[in-house]
Amino acid sequence: MLVQGKKYRTIWTEGESPDEQLFIIDQTALPHEFRIVCLHSLDDVCRAIRNMLVRGAGLIGATAAYGVWVAARQAPEPLFTMFMEQAYDVLRRTRPTAVNLAWALERQKKRIAGLSRDEAVRASLEEARAIADGDAECCWRIGQHGLGLLRKIALTHPDRPVEILTHCNAGWLAFVDYGSALAPVYAAFDEGIPVHVWVDETRPRGQGAALTSWELSRHGVPHDVIADNAGGHLMQHNMVDVVITGADRVARNGDAANKIGTYLKALAAADNHVPFYVALPSSTFDFGMKDGLQGIPIEERSPEEVLYAEGALDTGGIARVRLCPEGVHARNWAFDVTPARLITGFITDRGVCPASREGIATLYPECVMTSAGE
Amino acid sequence: MLVQGKKYRTIWTEGESPDEQLFIIDQTALPHEFRIVCLHSLDDVCRAIRNMLVRGAGLIGATAAYGVWVAARQAPEPLFTMFMEQAYDVLRRTRPTAVNLAWALERQKKRIAGLSRDEAVRASLEEARAIADGDAECCWRIGQHGLGLLRKIALTHPDRPVEILTHCNAGWLAFVDYGSALAPVYAAFDEGIPVHVWVDETRPRGQGAALTSWELSRHGVPHDVIADNAGGHLMQHNMVDVVITGADRVARNGDAANKIGTYLKALAAADNHVPFYVALPSSTFDFGMKDGLQGIPIEERSPEEVLYAEGALDTGGIARVRLCPEGVHARNWAFDVTPARLITGFITDRGVCPASREGIATLYPECVMTSAGE
Repeated sequence: MLVQGKKYRTIWTEGESPDEQLFIIDQTALPHEFRIVCLHSLDDVCRAIRNMLVRGAGLIGATAAYGVWVAARQAPEPLFTMFMEQAYDVLRRTRPTAVNLAWALERQKKRIAGLSRDEAVRASLEEARAIADGDAECCWRIGQHGLGLLRKIALTHPDRPVEILTHCNAGWLAFVDYGSALAPVYAAFDEGIPVHVWVDETRPRGQGAALTSWELSRHGVPHDVIADNAGGHLMQHNMVDVVITGADRVARNGDAANKIGTYLKALAAADNHVPFYVALPSSTFDFGMKDGLQGIPIEERSPEEVLYAEGALDTGGIARVRLCPEGVHARNWAFDVTPARLITGFITDRGVCPASREGIATLYPECVMTSAGE
Repeated sequence: MLVQGKKYRTIWTEGESPDEQLFIIDQTALPHEFRIVCLHSLDDVCRAIRNMLVRGAGLIGATAAYGVWVAARQAPEPLFTMFMEQAYDVLRRTRPTAVNLAWALERQKKRIAGLSRDEAVRASLEEARAIADGDAECCWRIGQHGLGLLRKIALTHPDRPVEILTHCNAGWLAFVDYGSALAPVYAAFDEGIPVHVWVDETRPRGQGAALTSWELSRHGVPHDVIADNAGGHLMQHNMVDVVITGADRVARNGDAANKIGTYLKALAAADNHVPFYVALPSSTFDFGMKDGLQGIPIEERSPEEVLYAEGALDTGGIARVRLCPEGVHARNWAFDVTPARLITGFITDRGVCPASREGIATLYPECVMTSAGE
């Protein structure tokens, strides 16, 4: 998407072979600094994943895939196979629970198995590009399917913008391009449909305030940041036409795990008859999980994220401030699960479907059994 | 309530006449510093109210009442009546929309009308004490009525603490003593009932993180601060037995205006069959307001409260940090209205009643008509 008028992805290469280099946007510096980092070595790539310079399932997978290419270039000819085995291993250990990371490494491993070093360098670059392009293509499709929904809303009131509320960051920064929840917004905006986004700040980590507002402002999409507490009031007063969030994991009954607080917005949407959509790539469905509310484990993170807030000082520099008195304790669950009954539908790269096992089965018949056995 | 083992109110006098002095807790310094301020003059009192060193309806009224005493002592004998007229006027203008402030001033005006300066000094001190005691007594009664509810919950599971979730600060800092939402918690704790409080941080101003956690920790009540996003998840997992919040204004149909985000917690409570109570002194009912959702105006405050967070730096000192990129806009509504249908009941100084016109009429028959005319 656009940053000050120039098109970017979250990961890309520049230069001509053999001097081609890998670049990323350092997301730890956002929103206060737009810093592009060149990843020269396998070490650089591992550090970027481990320290969350790159984040989001799709982007982590693509980065690992490019990491295999970087490693292949760096590998000494005689020890090539051994070196690559170690490279897969260190890459895999950067974020052990990231499903896309293991998947991307497996794809690369198969692709370059049995090739010479020079062939492997060429092939792994092709494969990394295919993985990155695949992620962007998948998000682009989500955007196109969601665009249809936003177009319909726009037709019902041509006199004012379509008002979209979103929670957390499910924009292009979490993928290679376009994003999931924000993909329909960008698609509508680029088509000239007037849109306005209510951005939940998303405490405690503030991904809405920091990342979503950065993305939207750089691409030029009108928006306002609001406290996480405000969405219910807005929906009571007809100031939201549709809620679109991303998801971290969706069970086959349609229950959706997403950033903590998503459930509260889904309740408000249901109470005020506002459609509530979850946008996600097909890979986010966990077809093996029967019941999301009962089955999806919820990570508890450091209480420090609640006790402190981080941002830019008026005097320059980044700092954190303690919001609570000293000695006070906090608890910090990272996600909650929104029951399928509160979700109007899923916007996926295959199309839009109702949030139920039957609904999901219409788009994923090969994955979801609809027999009476369940 | 207790601060490090010593009993405090939010406003009090010390010393023997004529050297008696007025003291308050400077709430702008909380939670990072416990600063007691002596208000020597009418100017000091006005500044304390205007700059929110004191806050909360009950406390603002009591401070204004003591302000009349401070002014009377300061008044020159020959110009006493004229001086006092001006004193009422400047006190009234410190927070023009505070109903309790105007009410306390009227009470003092009537009390000292026609008295000599020396008589007025004595009488206004008596009256200020009566107003402060009345506020504390009212909150104490709220605590006693709420205690009955918490005792019943405790009996159903003697093996673990009663889990209470609260939003914003409706504790003793917002009144002269005890508070509204927290009064039942303190009453239960002091009686030896095991309690644990989930404290919503309450963005954007963070009154939960700063004030409620300070109050509870100083009195020794177990609690954890949580992001405003977390309460729904807790209720889904049976980790909340009851929600108790305060209110800024309650209409006679039972709709309750309170800090933004209260409505979202009420929705989660209803969805999970968790009782949701609003605790308030009788003076918070607006019997002239028929429909709260339609009638109660919602103040919009500075976007800076959303764009920034304030707290203590690790290096010492207080600072604010900007959470959003530069140039980003925010909106900031201060309150929302929770519809009566989501409220289990009101805990008032007169007792507990259902949240409906009929329910309110059982406690306030003189104020709420129950005829078919409405």
